[in-house]
Parts: sequence; C-alpha cells; structure tokens
Amino acid sequence: MVIYVSRKETFSASHRLFNKNLSDEENQKIFGKCSNPNGHGHNYVLEVIIQGEPDPSTGYVIDLKLLKTIIRENVINKVDHKNLNLDVDFLKDIIPTTENIAAGIWKQLKDKIPSGRLYSVKLYETEKNFVEYKGE
Amino acid sequence: MVIYVSRKETFSASHRLFNKNLSDEENQKIFGKCSNPNGHGHNYVLEVIIQGEPDPSTGYVIDLKLLKTIIRENVINKVDHKNLNLDVDFLKDIIPTTENIAAGIWKQLKDKIPSGRLYSVKLYETEKNFVEYKGE
Amino acid sequence: MVIYVSRKETFSASHRLFNKNLSDEENQKIFGKCSNPNGHGHNYVLEVIIQGEPDPSTGYVIDLKLLKTIIRENVINKVDHKNLNLDVDFLKDIIPTTENIAAGIWKQLKDKIPSGRLYSVKLYETEKNFVEYKGE
Amino acid sequence: MVIYVSRKETFSASHRLFNKNLSDEENQKIFGKCSNPNGHGHNYVLEVIIQGEPDPSTGYVIDLKLLKTIIRENVINKVDHKNLNLDVDFLKDIIPTTENIAAGIWKQLKDKIPSGRLYSVKLYETEKNFVEYKGE
Amino acid sequence: MVIYVSRKETFSASHRLFNKNLSDEENQKIFGKCSNPNGHGHNYVLEVIIQGEPDPSTGYVIDLKLLKTIIRENVINKVDHKNLNLDVDFLKDIIPTTENIAAGIWKQLKDKIPSGRLYSVKLYETEKNFVEYKGE
Amino acid sequence: MVIYVSRKETFSASHRLFNKNLSDEENQKIFGKCSNPNGHGHNYVLEVIIQGEPDPSTGYVIDLKLLKTIIRENVINKVDHKNLNLDVDFLKDIIPTTENIAAGIWKQLKDKIPSGRLYSVKLYETEKNFVEYKGE
Repeated sequence: MVIYVSRKETFSASHRLFNKNLSDEENQKIFGKCSNPNGHGHNYVLEVIIQGEPDPSTGYVIDLKLLKTIIRENVINKVDHKNLNLDVDFLKDIIPTTENIAAGIWKQLKDKIPSGRLYSVKLYETEKNFVEYKGE
Repeated sequence: MVIYVSRKETFSASHRLFNKNLSDEENQKIFGKCSNPNGHGHNYVLEVIIQGEPDPSTGYVIDLKLLKTIIRENVINKVDHKNLNLDVDFLKDIIPTTENIAAGIWKQLKDKIPSGRLYSVKLYETEKNFVEYKGE
Repeated sequence: MVIYVSRKETFSASHRLFNKNLSDEENQKIFGKCSNPNGHGHNYVLEVIIQGEPDPSTGYVIDLKLLKTIIRENVINKVDHKNLNLDVDFLKDIIPTTENIAAGIWKQLKDKIPSGRLYSVKLYETEKNFVEYKGE
Repeated sequence: MVIYVSRKETFSASHRLFNKNLSDEENQKIFGKCSNPNGHGHNYVLEVIIQGEPDPSTGYVIDLKLLKTIIRENVINKVDHKNLNLDVDFLKDIIPTTENIAAGIWKQLKDKIPSGRLYSVKLYETEKNFVEYKGE
Repeated sequence: MVIYVSRKETFSASHRLFNKNLSDEENQKIFGKCSNPNGHGHNYVLEVIIQGEPDPSTGYVIDLKLLKTIIRENVINKVDHKNLNLDVDFLKDIIPTTENIAAGIWKQLKDKIPSGRLYSVKLYETEKNFVEYKGE
Repeated sequence: MVIYVSRKETFSASHRLFNKNLSDEENQKIFGKCSNPNGHGHNYVLEVIIQGEPDPSTGYVIDLKLLKTIIRENVINKVDHKNLNLDVDFLKDIIPTTENIAAGIWKQLKDKIPSGRLYSVKLYETEKNFVEYKGE
C-alpha cells in the first residue's frame, strides 16, 4: 500500500531576480518589476510530499512531527526572514526563481527522509504562482 | 478523453492515536500529544477523485450530485460527529492515522462509483497535514 | 530537470446545463437545478500547469507574466462576465459542464505555450467541485 | 454577556447589472462588462451574524443548525442556482448589486431570528469584492 | 492613533455538547449529533485582537511574537490535542459551545496583555460557524 | 441605508524592521529575525472598506472598478515589488511595521474616495498577523 503524505510549512523572504551575466537593460527586459534593485518579497508556502507504506505498528508512513522538524532544520531556518540572494548557502549563485528555489529545497531534503522517500516539493510564491519538482 | 472529477466534503471527528499492543510509555513516545487518553479532534476535509470519460449526452464523467450522495451515505454519515476509535465500523481495529483513515475510505467507496472509476482519496487532517491514496 | 509551473486565474460566468436533443423533462431529471431556464453562475478558478526545463539564463520554465497574458487573451477575456452557453465561440454546441469547459480551454491553450508544454488544465466550478484534464 | 454568532452559507447565481430607466449606452458606461446582456454569475458567500446572550441551559445564543435552516429556507433556496434579475421575488425591481442583494437578504431575515437579534449581513460577490449591512 | 492588531492561532480538540442537568433525551433533542457520547472534534481557529496605539520607538502596538507566546502559554497549550470537557481547567463545568469557549479564552487573556488592551476574541469551530466576544 | 463596501488587493514587498536611533543590539533585541540586515518580505493583503449609501440609480456605494483603480494608483503601484524601507515615498522615515504601513495607506487614500467615505484599512502581513486602522 503506497500512501503520499504531505506537510505544509511557510516562510517569508525577500529576493531579486537578475542574472549577473546580463546587462541591467537585459535584466529589466526579462524580469521587469521582479528585478527591482532593492528587492521585494513573498510569503512562500512549501509543501513536501513523502511516498511510502504505512508502518503497521504506527499507521504512519512518516511521523509528521519528525517531518516538520526535518523541514524546519534543513530549509525553513535557512530561508525564513532572509534575503534569498544573499543569506542562503544552498541558493548561492542561482537566480532565485520559484523553479530554482524548489530544486534547491529538493536537494536539501532528499537524503534526510528516514522512512518513505521524497516524492515532490511544491512551492507557492503567491496563491497564483507555484511550481512542483519531483526530482526527475 | 480522460477527465479527473473531484468532490470535496468535510467531517468533524475525534480520535486518539495509540497501539493497544504497545505500553503506555511506548504509545506516548511514538504518538506524543496525539495519544491524549481523552482524545482530541479535527475538521477533516475529504477529496474524492473519479477518473473517466464524459458521457456525450450529459457532459458528465459522473453527476456530482450523485457522487456527493455516495460519499455522504458511505463515508460522511458514518464518521461525522463521531469518535473514529469507537464509533466507526469500517475503522475497527486500526490506528486512526490519516493514512489508515484514507485507506479505509477508499475501501468504502471503490465499488460504489457508477460511472468512471475511483482514482484517488485525499484526506486533510489539518491544512498542513494531509495524505493521498490511489489504491496501489 | 523537469519542473511543473502553475498559474491561477479566475473568471465569473453564467451558464445553464441542458441538452437540446432531450426533452425538458429529461433535462430536468438529469441536470436538476443546474438546468434553471434563466441560468445561474459561478466564480470559476482556472489553474494552468506547464511542464518543462528551466532556461539556465532566466531560471524560468516559462515567464509567468507571459503565461498570464496568454491565458487572459485566449481564455479569460472570452469567458469572464459572459454567458457560457451564448457568448463564447470555443464553447459553441457543447453542454457547458466543468468537464467540457476544461477540455475547451485545453484546446484554446495547447498550441500557444512558447516554452515548456501544456501539462494540465484544472477548473474549479466551486471550492467543492472541480476537474482536471491532461490532454489524454 | 453579548456574543456575536456567525453562520456562513454559499449560493451560485447569475445576474446582470442594468438600470431599465437608462439607455444602453449609459448602462454600458456605468456597469461595463457587468452589464453583459446575457448575464454572468458568481459563487456568493453569505455570512449572517446574530448578536445575543448565550442561554445558560444550552450555551447557545442561537442553535446554528436552526440558523442554517432559517437562512436556507428564507434566502438560499430562493437564490441558489437562480437568475437574480428574473427568478427572485425579494429582489424584484432592484438592480442586483451586492449592496442591494445584501439589503434584500437583511429584510428576508430580520424578523425570523428566534433568539438574539440579526446584527449584520455580509455578502461576498468574489473573494475581492464584498459588502456588509447592519440594518442602519 | 488607535490600531487593532490581530494574531491567529489554531488548536485541535474534541468535545461533547451536553448539559448534565438534563436527561439524555433532552440533550439529544437540543444538541443532536453534537451530543454523541464518545465525542467528536474540530480544528479551531482562534483570533485575538488587541487595540492600542503604536509605540513610536518600535512601531508596534504589541510585539506579535510576544502576543503569540501569551496566547500559546495561556490558551493553546491548555486546549490543543485535548478533550474540552475533561482536560481543561478554565472550561470546567461549562458546556463547551463555541460561545462559552470564546468567553473562557477572554478571561484567560484579558489581564495578560502588556501593551494595548484585549479588544476581541474570535473563535471558528469550522469555516462556517464562528463567534466573537468583546468582553461586554 | 449605510453599507460597508470592501475591496481586497495584494502586493509583494520586502522590508526590514529597525529603528535607526537605536543600536544594533537594541534593534536585534526588539525586532529579532524581522531585523535581518538584508531584509525579508511578504505577500501583503490589503482590504479597503468604504462606508456610504447606495446611489439609487446605480445601486453602488462606490463603483468597485473605480475603487480598484484608486487603490492601485495611490498604493499598489507604489509598494508592489518594492522595498518598503527604501523605495516608497509615503513610508519615508517610518519603521515599516504593519501598523505604520496601514496608517500610511490610510493617509494615501482618505481624500481620494469620490463617493462614500473611507471607513477602514486592513492589512495582512501574513494569514496569521494583521491590523486594522479606522482613522481614529
């Protein structure tokens, strides 16, 4: 029996979209207001989905209290109330689009799941814009 | 043409997580506050997804009024305003984790769908904790 | 690396469910209050999911500002504040169930995506009733 | 002790904003796309707030099951899956703006509350547009 | 300058509505399924509103991190994952309707606010049923 | 007849809480992680409430399309995708707490409402933290 178990966490962060290899004009053309030099920010919503079989003695694929701790220690504590361009080791040298942040979070989490396996990382930048990465 | 049709219903229930084959200490260690002897409860949100081809004469994979009735008769009426450990025939002798409740709901519904087929049962214990079961 | 990128838009429209090849009694029996002769309406929520690889120079699978424009020009402007039975060219001669509207929106969008490919169209008629179509 | 007790219900309806005493051009200028001749529609959310003192023997200001029944019989059954311009007796000869619908619902309900008194009617046309009427 | 500052917290609890001075038949007649002998439960949402003037040196009416701590220590830790009939000192000997729980929470909080004053306690039993108490 | 009409808009911005007259240690003690030197950010939700009497010829207290334009021109265009400490003229020299931003938005809007009068500005920094200002 395969069950998908999800945990949602939130974090508030600032970022600026720009590619340092491009000119200011090109950055402005590609990223528009998302490239404001002084940055802007979001309340991100992160959803982590684990796939696995419930343990018969607990009925859990994974203890969600433990999953919450793993997400907080490996992701939330590093990005919450931070600037994603400047303050986060695992986002160094990438353009912090929602796509790239989700992929970075995947790498942070994939080897930390003690039961089941990491199936998907969903990241909402706003209620209207969001991405999903399944490690493929 | 394959369409996935979803219906959301809610129910309010109490439960207690514990494994009767384990000691009180072990239950406390595994389930923590979820094992409070007098129980606690949730507003569960249930999402049932049916997969099928729309009937050309109705444009429906399944009439959602009918799906709502099927979910209410087979699930909601049995769990809403109930204690999931004590009051529910189809959850007898299982630990009522979200994983196990979702699997129990799947069994309640899988043979009751008159058009299309049951594709998935999603169950939200809270807005932050939820599971999905696809019958595999 | 495959990322799924989603954009949510909303529109408000009226419709009436009926099959002109059936009698009034049959329509009433099948569609009930959804067949009210003077119609009724909904705030539809549309979710469009694009699948693709992020461009290394932008970090985008698709620029969401562009995706928003494509959805507005090809879908929202044609259905928002309209009667889905009478006012929409791409829904002519279909029964405007959520299933059929989603399939119609898929056809409107599938050749308009400049990077990545259209993966899924989700359409919420209400918070409780919604469908998904993946073009299969 | 004064407590405010709220109950939320929803209905789906179509409408068209126009003033029959004005020309088509004036209606178009005032109401724009809201005046589409074939109408459009919404999932309205209605919130009814009762003010009163809890009865010591029940702990209720008003039994919410009873309030739900009163709202359904006097409002929801008359507006759900209807055309607000054509099908609703208590909205005859008014322009069905959210303001006017809320005031009409107030009149429907104000004498029907068996304990406590009607304090407020809130009506959401969309998540972004809503009104409140307190009978003043 | 008077500002109203709100903080939302959640808790999951079970309860049973019944009046021990009434017969089982009377309890069943008044409370219906809410009086299920083995209880049921909810994800409660609590909103606490503080009224006051921002401190010029901080821009805060009250530090929300502090307000969160006050709410957790005085309310959430006492009700979360508990049975409201049996486990909560400040709800002893009351019928745990939403009205009575809100009034009990008011009493827990009213003398604990270090800046500003407690203006309102809102308590959502479900998304559709909620109450507000302002200490009057 | 007095009706309260509300319009919700959103904006995404970054900020840093600190008082330039205090030392770094004092700022850190008061504002904690909200004082991160490189800033952080939020998806703010702004709710503007207008109080007035519906115009009999339109049924509107205020045309919400017009209110939306007024809010966008006077507020959203100045704060969306901006740094609230550095980029916003009407927030110069204030600590950008939610309290102070709401008061600043009030001043931006109070003389711009063509029918009815500004009744309240609500500002959500997150779903859990929000303030209301009524100009008193």
